[in-house]
Amino acid sequence: MSDINIELIGLIAAVFTTSSFFPQVIKIWRTKQTKDISTTMYIAMMIGTCFWLTYGILINSFAIIVANIVSGLLVLFVLIFKLVNRKS
Amino acid sequence: MSDINIELIGLIAAVFTTSSFFPQVIKIWRTKQTKDISTTMYIAMMIGTCFWLTYGILINSFAIIVANIVSGLLVLFVLIFKLVNRKS
Repeated sequence: MSDINIELIGLIAAVFTTSSFFPQVIKIWRTKQTKDISTTMYIAMMIGTCFWLTYGILINSFAIIVANIVSGLLVLFVLIFKLVNRKS
Repeated sequence: MSDINIELIGLIAAVFTTSSFFPQVIKIWRTKQTKDISTTMYIAMMIGTCFWLTYGILINSFAIIVANIVSGLLVLFVLIFKLVNRKS
């Protein structure tokens, strides 16, 4: 299989796993509620995303880099909302 | 950086992102409740995991293969519980 086709499979994978974060982000944006959100889960996800991004850069995988930049931003959004809500 | 060190970074990433699924699995196991679980999210995650697994096999990435086998099993557990609960 050509490198372009392999990278295409990676990008399809990225679209599915990244888009799975959207329902949670939209729900928080609408309701402004984060009480039932597990901070531990999202902190673990954030650390993991940073490591995957480093890994993607080291093995030159475009799919892994793109997937983890987008996922990282979505996870960061959830964590910031969770922190802001804690103060109010 | 050596290939072994790069793979180690991938495996650390895998531990963090995979372990972030555990709180949800444990919660479902204890409460047997899946009402608030988004089926769409977990189906997207399942499809994405299958594509990542294929991608990992094609680029020979041990970290991606291990991460997606374990995550896939955890996501499958959540989906099966969700389906079983719907019937009862």
